[in-house]
Amino acid sequence: MKDVTTDLARLTASEARAEMRAGRLTSLDLVQACLARIAARDKEVRAWITLNPEAEAQAAAIAPDDPRPLAGIPIAIKDMIDTGDLPTTHNSPLYGTNRPANDAPCVEVLRAAGAIVLGKSDTTEFAAAGRWAATANPHDVTRTPGGSSSGTAAAVGDFHVPLGLGTQTGGSTIRPASFCGDVALKPSWGLISTEGVKRYSVSLDTIGLFARSVEDIALLADVYRLPEAPAPGARLRLGLCLTPYADKLEPETLALFGTLAERLAPVADVIPFDLPEDFAGIDDLHRCVMHSEGAAAFLNLAVTRPALLHDDFHARVERRAGHTPRQMFEAYDALARLRMTFEEMSKGFDAILAPSAPGFAPPGKGPGNPLFNAMWTALQVPVMTLPVSGQDLPLGVSLVGRRAEDRRVIAAAQRVAPLL
Amino acid sequence: MKDVTTDLARLTASEARAEMRAGRLTSLDLVQACLARIAARDKEVRAWITLNPEAEAQAAAIAPDDPRPLAGIPIAIKDMIDTGDLPTTHNSPLYGTNRPANDAPCVEVLRAAGAIVLGKSDTTEFAAAGRWAATANPHDVTRTPGGSSSGTAAAVGDFHVPLGLGTQTGGSTIRPASFCGDVALKPSWGLISTEGVKRYSVSLDTIGLFARSVEDIALLADVYRLPEAPAPGARLRLGLCLTPYADKLEPETLALFGTLAERLAPVADVIPFDLPEDFAGIDDLHRCVMHSEGAAAFLNLAVTRPALLHDDFHARVERRAGHTPRQMFEAYDALARLRMTFEEMSKGFDAILAPSAPGFAPPGKGPGNPLFNAMWTALQVPVMTLPVSGQDLPLGVSLVGRRAEDRRVIAAAQRVAPLL
Repeated sequence: MKDVTTDLARLTASEARAEMRAGRLTSLDLVQACLARIAARDKEVRAWITLNPEAEAQAAAIAPDDPRPLAGIPIAIKDMIDTGDLPTTHNSPLYGTNRPANDAPCVEVLRAAGAIVLGKSDTTEFAAAGRWAATANPHDVTRTPGGSSSGTAAAVGDFHVPLGLGTQTGGSTIRPASFCGDVALKPSWGLISTEGVKRYSVSLDTIGLFARSVEDIALLADVYRLPEAPAPGARLRLGLCLTPYADKLEPETLALFGTLAERLAPVADVIPFDLPEDFAGIDDLHRCVMHSEGAAAFLNLAVTRPALLHDDFHARVERRAGHTPRQMFEAYDALARLRMTFEEMSKGFDAILAPSAPGFAPPGKGPGNPLFNAMWTALQVPVMTLPVSGQDLPLGVSLVGRRAEDRRVIAAAQRVAPLL
Repeated sequence: MKDVTTDLARLTASEARAEMRAGRLTSLDLVQACLARIAARDKEVRAWITLNPEAEAQAAAIAPDDPRPLAGIPIAIKDMIDTGDLPTTHNSPLYGTNRPANDAPCVEVLRAAGAIVLGKSDTTEFAAAGRWAATANPHDVTRTPGGSSSGTAAAVGDFHVPLGLGTQTGGSTIRPASFCGDVALKPSWGLISTEGVKRYSVSLDTIGLFARSVEDIALLADVYRLPEAPAPGARLRLGLCLTPYADKLEPETLALFGTLAERLAPVADVIPFDLPEDFAGIDDLHRCVMHSEGAAAFLNLAVTRPALLHDDFHARVERRAGHTPRQMFEAYDALARLRMTFEEMSKGFDAILAPSAPGFAPPGKGPGNPLFNAMWTALQVPVMTLPVSGQDLPLGVSLVGRRAEDRRVIAAAQRVAPLL
């Protein structure tokens, strides 16, 4: 019996929907399997802050022939994102009793597609700094799941739930997905509303999509109406980019990237893709924007509840990193120039292969280094991470696309994934 | 007695604070005077959707020696902005019963400074389209107060309240302020958090500040910690820019701008400031970004409550204006280039004088034409409007600054205002 529920919990959303359509599975079976998996695992993994007490009742109410794309599929929602029926704590002592009146738009869209919010997953405080998530990496509980979408990444990677929502301002989706063995998409900036998501950096905050298959990411792309994009040709054209920070890569990543051209040869031409020198400063530009926008985002907390606000956020409000508001606007302009350069350079590529993290998940609970993610967030481009098999621990490869070509990246990932 | 309360309602926030500090006025006196003014006027003006039933009690609780910068000062909050103690309807049938759990950060900051939220003011639906505000122009009730911050602009201009919050995505602060005779500031984008404000266009939505004096705008700039900026020199250096759309200006505006150099000669050199030809497309770029970001912003409403959602918003979600997501990103890049050009061109100017609207408020209830505002919103620059005396109806002049130099614009406005 235990094996059966575990097996059900291992289904992807697309597989579960196919079983439901065939009349061989109900939403309640699936939700109960997920809850059983959580009961067995979450004392150690600690992915969840709140479980939805109505999840089984909501699952039982899903009609067997419900045609909606996510009908009856449980999903984890990062506890940075408002839910009208569950607390939303941002993992902050300032929001311990916070009960939003409404779902965030990104959650409403999921529920309208039939998804069942299984619960709220742990996060770095305000998805930014301060307090870390309590979550452990399910593949090695002495290591971090990565942050800030720690709980969502671990819950999906540990078969608590097939789908999850996170966010990314620096590397908060792609990096934990890499550490936990998930498939994830950070969409092009601006395509999914971040209203109802605790604000950190308005021009960088992005909703992140977590799953265990490329097909499931495509399903979520449909639900969020991500735009159509040119399909890749018969043979993929992929760039290979170690970024300006290649000297910060761990040996396991360097070794992996040395094999990619050969591994992917059956489906793709892999061509070196080196960014020009002016990209070396992109991480500093990203940090300037993120910290400066954080000064506006956290001002209200600094003036209303200073004692409970972690010093990391007072540091943002007081601009202790030393960035002036003028520099923020200069950073906007400099990033805009780099976006235009990347647009030109990436013409004709289906995706650019890049590291999803420096290497394996490091020991401890810290969020990890966002160096290989923040630059793409700043460029507004879609990034998808795919797990690579045959490693000691999970390790992801990023496929980076051009803005609004999220679907082209997903299509490329569908061909690449079986070879990783 | 009636005259006394009317006189109190005519005080600016700075004047009222000085009276309170001198022990000659209490917050309760002021709030009651404002409520009396509203009782006398709002049947005709219809600025308010909700009045705060606790306003008098909150005013009575303000200690006479409360040192906070806005202690006891009543303020109008556009009903697009969340308040934890009052409904927030967005003037939409979809949100008639909406009761947010928390104040928006921009409201929390005001309350922490001692302000009393007198109520929620009417707005164009979602500050965007659909349903217009019921508000009339207090200077001629057959005319529009302008939109979308209709209620805030009318309430401030008609002495219901000395201060107000609005928003601006196209021209929703500067234009109604011009029509109602207010002083207003649309700050540089990104300096005041728009969290808790109904989303329309994430890269354009901006909080707008309304008052009846430049000094009061400076007070609000302090409260929101707008950054320090270079002070103008002994003699102002002002550009004069009729924008690429000068052919759309009404005769009253053309006549006024013909007099500005002479009017301001005592304090300023007024120098022609012509934008290069590539600025002619800026209004189209703005509209592409606004409509495209609206597709993401309103998707949740289109899928959850399609029957009650005004067709204007379905049009955004369905991208009926014909902009593709790729074009949105191209518009981001094109606007970024124009921002850099404006940065270069505006070096050495304290502010650029420009029209706040095509002309006087037109008849009816429509929001008016945003053509002379949207371009500056898209450029992220601070814009302050000052009312000009001696006209048949209110008419404003905009002072446009460089990004993050909001304080320089305010300082220039302090010298310019007495001559208008």
